[in-house]
Amino acid sequence: MATAHTDALRRLGVQVRGIVGRTPERGDTAARRLGLPRAYRSLAEVLEDRSVQAVHIVTPNSLHAQQVMQALEAGKHVICEKPLAPSSEEASALVDMSLHADTVTAVCLNVRYYPQCIHARDLIARGRIGTVRMVTGRYHQDWLARATDWNWRLEPDQQGRLRAVADIGVHWLDLVQTWLDDRIDSVFADLYTFLPKRRRPTATMETFRHVRDEEVSGVEVDVHSDDAAALLARFRNGARAVATFSQVSYGNKNCIEVQVDGSESSLTWRSEEPEYLWLGHRGQPNELVTKDYDLLSDLATKKARYPVGHVEGYPDTFVSLFGDVYDDILRGGRSAQPRYPTFTDGYDLVLICEAIEESARVGRWVPV
Amino acid sequence: MATAHTDALRRLGVQVRGIVGRTPERGDTAARRLGLPRAYRSLAEVLEDRSVQAVHIVTPNSLHAQQVMQALEAGKHVICEKPLAPSSEEASALVDMSLHADTVTAVCLNVRYYPQCIHARDLIARGRIGTVRMVTGRYHQDWLARATDWNWRLEPDQQGRLRAVADIGVHWLDLVQTWLDDRIDSVFADLYTFLPKRRRPTATMETFRHVRDEEVSGVEVDVHSDDAAALLARFRNGARAVATFSQVSYGNKNCIEVQVDGSESSLTWRSEEPEYLWLGHRGQPNELVTKDYDLLSDLATKKARYPVGHVEGYPDTFVSLFGDVYDDILRGGRSAQPRYPTFTDGYDLVLICEAIEESARVGRWVPV
Amino acid sequence: MATAHTDALRRLGVQVRGIVGRTPERGDTAARRLGLPRAYRSLAEVLEDRSVQAVHIVTPNSLHAQQVMQALEAGKHVICEKPLAPSSEEASALVDMSLHADTVTAVCLNVRYYPQCIHARDLIARGRIGTVRMVTGRYHQDWLARATDWNWRLEPDQQGRLRAVADIGVHWLDLVQTWLDDRIDSVFADLYTFLPKRRRPTATMETFRHVRDEEVSGVEVDVHSDDAAALLARFRNGARAVATFSQVSYGNKNCIEVQVDGSESSLTWRSEEPEYLWLGHRGQPNELVTKDYDLLSDLATKKARYPVGHVEGYPDTFVSLFGDVYDDILRGGRSAQPRYPTFTDGYDLVLICEAIEESARVGRWVPV
Amino acid sequence: MATAHTDALRRLGVQVRGIVGRTPERGDTAARRLGLPRAYRSLAEVLEDRSVQAVHIVTPNSLHAQQVMQALEAGKHVICEKPLAPSSEEASALVDMSLHADTVTAVCLNVRYYPQCIHARDLIARGRIGTVRMVTGRYHQDWLARATDWNWRLEPDQQGRLRAVADIGVHWLDLVQTWLDDRIDSVFADLYTFLPKRRRPTATMETFRHVRDEEVSGVEVDVHSDDAAALLARFRNGARAVATFSQVSYGNKNCIEVQVDGSESSLTWRSEEPEYLWLGHRGQPNELVTKDYDLLSDLATKKARYPVGHVEGYPDTFVSLFGDVYDDILRGGRSAQPRYPTFTDGYDLVLICEAIEESARVGRWVPV
Repeated sequence: MATAHTDALRRLGVQVRGIVGRTPERGDTAARRLGLPRAYRSLAEVLEDRSVQAVHIVTPNSLHAQQVMQALEAGKHVICEKPLAPSSEEASALVDMSLHADTVTAVCLNVRYYPQCIHARDLIARGRIGTVRMVTGRYHQDWLARATDWNWRLEPDQQGRLRAVADIGVHWLDLVQTWLDDRIDSVFADLYTFLPKRRRPTATMETFRHVRDEEVSGVEVDVHSDDAAALLARFRNGARAVATFSQVSYGNKNCIEVQVDGSESSLTWRSEEPEYLWLGHRGQPNELVTKDYDLLSDLATKKARYPVGHVEGYPDTFVSLFGDVYDDILRGGRSAQPRYPTFTDGYDLVLICEAIEESARVGRWVPV
Repeated sequence: MATAHTDALRRLGVQVRGIVGRTPERGDTAARRLGLPRAYRSLAEVLEDRSVQAVHIVTPNSLHAQQVMQALEAGKHVICEKPLAPSSEEASALVDMSLHADTVTAVCLNVRYYPQCIHARDLIARGRIGTVRMVTGRYHQDWLARATDWNWRLEPDQQGRLRAVADIGVHWLDLVQTWLDDRIDSVFADLYTFLPKRRRPTATMETFRHVRDEEVSGVEVDVHSDDAAALLARFRNGARAVATFSQVSYGNKNCIEVQVDGSESSLTWRSEEPEYLWLGHRGQPNELVTKDYDLLSDLATKKARYPVGHVEGYPDTFVSLFGDVYDDILRGGRSAQPRYPTFTDGYDLVLICEAIEESARVGRWVPV
Repeated sequence: MATAHTDALRRLGVQVRGIVGRTPERGDTAARRLGLPRAYRSLAEVLEDRSVQAVHIVTPNSLHAQQVMQALEAGKHVICEKPLAPSSEEASALVDMSLHADTVTAVCLNVRYYPQCIHARDLIARGRIGTVRMVTGRYHQDWLARATDWNWRLEPDQQGRLRAVADIGVHWLDLVQTWLDDRIDSVFADLYTFLPKRRRPTATMETFRHVRDEEVSGVEVDVHSDDAAALLARFRNGARAVATFSQVSYGNKNCIEVQVDGSESSLTWRSEEPEYLWLGHRGQPNELVTKDYDLLSDLATKKARYPVGHVEGYPDTFVSLFGDVYDDILRGGRSAQPRYPTFTDGYDLVLICEAIEESARVGRWVPV
Repeated sequence: MATAHTDALRRLGVQVRGIVGRTPERGDTAARRLGLPRAYRSLAEVLEDRSVQAVHIVTPNSLHAQQVMQALEAGKHVICEKPLAPSSEEASALVDMSLHADTVTAVCLNVRYYPQCIHARDLIARGRIGTVRMVTGRYHQDWLARATDWNWRLEPDQQGRLRAVADIGVHWLDLVQTWLDDRIDSVFADLYTFLPKRRRPTATMETFRHVRDEEVSGVEVDVHSDDAAALLARFRNGARAVATFSQVSYGNKNCIEVQVDGSESSLTWRSEEPEYLWLGHRGQPNELVTKDYDLLSDLATKKARYPVGHVEGYPDTFVSLFGDVYDDILRGGRSAQPRYPTFTDGYDLVLICEAIEESARVGRWVPV
């Protein structure tokens, strides 16, 4: 993620001062690889540097809450990778802190920044598909499909109890809540651990990297977190959602799908062909919206940087997200109604995750 | 459906003797339109005709059970549209009767007869995707998306209490149970009636026909059956299923999707491009199986009648289904393990529907 | 093709009297396999049978002209597989005969009968895409991609000098001429024989069947006909066409693609997903027309037999084609402006083929 | 293009010193918009700045040759947008100059830098599809489809005589020559000017921007350049190519398609879903290669920066291209066999364009 953040900040003309590694050596290596001026020895050293205005937290999940707190106390703007915190209590505390601070705060829920996702949100807001009835979809990956796959997310002390839900499901949930401008108020969930035993490798694994044969260790580890999950949800305004999240679905490399059924039309978006938005109709042909500036909403147009037909992708969503955040930073403070994901959004997702976990445990609907 | 059945039987070289209409006039019209030798006045008249060996029941759901019973008593072979019966008691009685009869009995679950569906079943049986973990998918239509859409299926006394589940969901469930060669043993369901009030038109509506403006009546009718449904299910062997069934999803004309995630690979089939089977892998490219006779299993090859690349579709599934049924009829009796859907399959689906209804009512997992 | 014809005729309620095989034994086998009442010993025997009204010619190309002539002389209606005749002289003679006969004559150019192809033609005729500028596309197959693939079409005395063009290209050309209601008036072509030497197998090969290893013979045969071809064409009204036809393109099982660029919009159809018509726009989203009876033209609706979303395919095109032909047969004679492909259409395609062959030889544009 | 270049250079950590506008005012505006330190008054001023090592030429085509020459004379590294020069004489002179200079030179043919395009090239080089038989495809856009569309490319003195071919066709040709590691040695072409009269607007038009109603002027302008073109080509090693290039095809926003038919398999790539490479087979299922690092060649892997399933697009190709060029710049000189497009490649494309123009004029095959 350090690469994605650095890359996007540079495209915005933001000066990236440096990086902190897990160890000084890793920091030096990363700084060299990314061409950064400096590797800080520690977060404390960063926070003392008065030339640093904003801090990006892209560490393992268990460290987020404490590091955000330190950065806020030091008066820095904070952009934190999701999840914001391991529990709703901690997330709530961070929301409180952020509301009392003068600085800008954001959570890296980048998916909502695909131009077609911005457009979808605007279409729904303008009533173009009518009242939303039902949202269906999935977020499926396959990089943890085998018992020999490994990543720090499989360590419960680094990831938390939820995995597929907390790691990828939250992107789907954030997208849908943003599109509907509505909040989920109860959930029913089923969590699946298809691989209750895995082998931890001898090497540290980068995310999405596969363990090589020689790295497979003899140590079998019990895993309790969710390889996949099924979710039914109800929104405050009556809409329903049904989704599956999976990190063990072969062939789905990073497949987000959302279909929103309204009372007049439907819309569907798929992350693997992100430049298309499919509109479903009756009595007129279904439509495929492309990145055509005669068609896209003003906000979507503003965030699409390249000509029609010239595909933009995942890296570009970070530019759009950080663009909004740094607009606020340059203006000197939070907008009244930021489009970018706030700590409140991050907190809300932690609440949903906790309700999901409880529902799966008790086998009933649970309010958020 | 009379057209689909007649068409398929003729392609098999089966002589179609005649048809019974709801009224004698409708019967005469249908016989003329289809070029059939005769319109019978009643089912009784059909059953008395000794030249008739087999009877196809394609009436509204509420009549199936009684008509099947009469036909069995008359010693005819019976092919019945789904659902077999409105309750598991009645369905069970029909299974008993059929097991004691010498005649061949079948339920028209035609979806499993797409060549790629036969191939998918064979791939799973041969262990080609490993142990099945999870099945996800949908069966979505849009022909009942508006409050002015109407069909006899909206009349509770003709359809039963379940609609989307009983009318289309059962095809999805049959397909998945067939592929996995496994039975669902518990379900959790949520049923959605997005249009609790509809307008019954002045004319009788054919299935899939839309009400014209002048036919919309002033009579508002309360509807309690499911416009859409969400289903979580557990199979005896541990696999999980997650599906949505909807008749109100704009743009989805008749969209069946099934993704089966196994421990080695996955497979996906979509009814709207039925000649492709998508195989998901890791470490090798995903694959698109076409109707290539070098690739398809023997059974799939046997059921595909046209050259590779020459698309076969929905009408052809009936030819394949009836082909298997009439093979047994010609041989003079039921095979030991018929590939075609039996009354037992039909009964099993009624049991699942009842569990779905109960689960939605009590908000808990319910065993089948 | 005997199967496709028999199957389609039966669906129309037409009584198929019998079949003639290449040998009496093959005729008997075919009659048995297809459940036909009779195997005639010869075409002469068929023509003497006064109960036979219409004859379908589905023999190798070199026999078409003579057999058509005999059947016309016997006063039968004639439906002939393409190509109508090996040369424009012979085709012209058949056109003359057919114009003087009282009987109905047709050539089996079935592709124009896909419901979306009928709809495309109607859209263009109604000016919905403006003036046609350019037509691009392809007809690619792969069943002759290897030197060990074999079929009678590789024998020059049975097929004629052109192969990919004459066998599949003519379908593309007929479709495009029909859609544009215009005639090609000059062509530039390049013909490719990538496999100048092939191995003729020891067994007779059915079309689309692959030679098994044990059937590959040691006899190498020189092949001069086109494995693939490139065509540039100009229409009388100024539109241009660019197409490739190939029987040696791996992975393309039977892939027809046509994109028509007009002055207002474009349309694209692909035979491998035949139920969709893609409309290209600017200033409004591109559209995907499905078999929605609220959208399709009256003629397309009349020819689509199954509900929206229930895929129809290749076999169904023959039902639609023969339906039109037998309507005329039942009415007792040719319509003034038949929608079905006539001998004049067949003759026109032979003329284009001859111009293609000449152009490839001389390396210049050649008028048709 | 200034944005695309600046964006990509920043991602590489290259310091962008400034920009030259068509006028000082436009230069100032651009520098401000892009956050660049400086707007130079003229190219001369840039060339005098000793801190500038490399110059990117992204001006209208007619200025390229002269500006490249000046930059080379000043000892700068030069990266030039295509086309390199308006005639083969001038292009040849630039090649000579560049071969005698110590600096690095490149032409911005970025399409070959999509990860799947790199992989395709490597697959072909490794013989994975056998001997190449035929390459088919298209490069279609629609942004000049109407008589009121305008851009400097429609001014013959700025663009040259060829438009669709020279502006977009060359990308297709470069890609194919690169993949096949072969050169086109003769061409047959047909050029189409469907809109011989257009209206030049009152405002200056950015590329891909559409003229607004109030900007449409009363001045009708004659246009002679190609709205679209058809090309047949022969490669030195015997392969054939067939392509169409169009800027007037509604609905095709920026659609590059290439299918390469080999003697063992085929491969297809489409720019609008750039992360997939489709492999066509017989006897095994067709395959869809995704950006899976277990599958991609080493070079493709090196150039893909984001995890599997996280779509990269058009902006990323410039990072990859400039990455290779600046590697050479940092190393202090041209590699022996650069992967990036050289002036020789640019020259070769000018030669092909001239042969295309001549062939269309004389109606015959013309050697390159």
